[in-house]
Amino acid sequence: MPGLIDPDRLCVILVSTRNPLNIGAAARAMCNFGFHRLRLVHPYDLAFREARSAVGASAVLTDAEQFATVADAVADCTLVVGTTAIGHRQLQHPLQVLKDGAASILQQLTAPPDHPSRVAILFGSEKVGLSNDDLSHCHWLMHIPTSDQQRSMNLGQAVAVCLYEIVRESGLPSPSVEIPRASAEEVERVTTALLETLHTSQYIDAHSPDSREQVVRRMLRRMQLSTEDASIWLGILRQILWKLRAGN
Amino acid sequence: MPGLIDPDRLCVILVSTRNPLNIGAAARAMCNFGFHRLRLVHPYDLAFREARSAVGASAVLTDAEQFATVADAVADCTLVVGTTAIGHRQLQHPLQVLKDGAASILQQLTAPPDHPSRVAILFGSEKVGLSNDDLSHCHWLMHIPTSDQQRSMNLGQAVAVCLYEIVRESGLPSPSVEIPRASAEEVERVTTALLETLHTSQYIDAHSPDSREQVVRRMLRRMQLSTEDASIWLGILRQILWKLRAGN
Repeated sequence: MPGLIDPDRLCVILVSTRNPLNIGAAARAMCNFGFHRLRLVHPYDLAFREARSAVGASAVLTDAEQFATVADAVADCTLVVGTTAIGHRQLQHPLQVLKDGAASILQQLTAPPDHPSRVAILFGSEKVGLSNDDLSHCHWLMHIPTSDQQRSMNLGQAVAVCLYEIVRESGLPSPSVEIPRASAEEVERVTTALLETLHTSQYIDAHSPDSREQVVRRMLRRMQLSTEDASIWLGILRQILWKLRAGN
Repeated sequence: MPGLIDPDRLCVILVSTRNPLNIGAAARAMCNFGFHRLRLVHPYDLAFREARSAVGASAVLTDAEQFATVADAVADCTLVVGTTAIGHRQLQHPLQVLKDGAASILQQLTAPPDHPSRVAILFGSEKVGLSNDDLSHCHWLMHIPTSDQQRSMNLGQAVAVCLYEIVRESGLPSPSVEIPRASAEEVERVTTALLETLHTSQYIDAHSPDSREQVVRRMLRRMQLSTEDASIWLGILRQILWKLRAGN
């Protein structure tokens, strides 16, 4: 069977989780399905401490890493997938049902070792899910098909179902030609350079800079830049910036 | 493509559940995947009362039926399936992995109305699972493939994963968001604007402009721009060009 899953390539990222039981449940589901990289973005401190110190807390939990921002948590990942129950906000990202999304994720997890790439799956807080700002770091969104009457799943259950689906077929053939994808950190570098250019050129001006910045940020993620493309863009933008500043 | 699921034909049966949160979580997963028949066999009374009276308890929970024995709880069912994490006792039943077991269950749930049949899925207590006596009421057993290091799943998560697998192929209506792709003409317009910008900013200069232009052209095609993204880029590039020229 081709392509063994490399569990080290998958990061489960919980953003702003409030309930220690949910952190524990996510960790347990990860153990059940053979994954171990748990990351937390500004969890409620108390929740994290409680989950970590619970009787029988797993290595997954004690080794969990904590980050201040989503950007930091996904910095070494080449594919960032957000989860959503949809319904409560207009989506501005490509959306895949779990079955199809998991297949794409599986491809990354089983790619040959000379093309290693890390995948992040983001889960939002119990009350509000992922914010627009969190989502702006995602390449695409994934959605567990649920009933219209009760769309929103419990966090621990959502993690379990997603991981189950990823390992369900454990070992789909992976494509032979892979272009190395840019990491989130590389994409962020392009984002920063582009935003600087847009401010300098006054494409973004004093009016509502935040929403324009989000538009640009999302657009860059949709482009699924390769490592090479990211470096071309960086060169282009630096030259433009230099020229814009020289002219003023 | 299987027929439509009749949710009334599936009973989720929790045997000897101790933790009210797990009863609540099972009920929630049922709502998520469109099922509503919850049955409890001698649950801890306190656990059941607590779960039922929890804020936001669903109709599934308030309508849950209570039975003294497994025999009573499965009396109207034609197929009784036990769930197990195996490992801790010698199995004397046919065993199916979830994927295959769920397919058999789905067949019953989607059978023509003149052949109605009710299916029970049994979940055992948190500590010991289903007893040999409970298992003796089952036609066969079903098992979620989990890691050898941590076989046993949390009850609510196991219910969620099982129900997800059952509805997985049945096509719960799922919204699809399609982002319209930019036409070749639109991409070419962006290309022209970018090349103009690169000449003006001297990113492309007199040395071998052709190969640089080709690099840029290929890069833009790899990006698979959406119509919206193409128009954002066009706006950005025109503003930069205007500003570059104003500066010179």
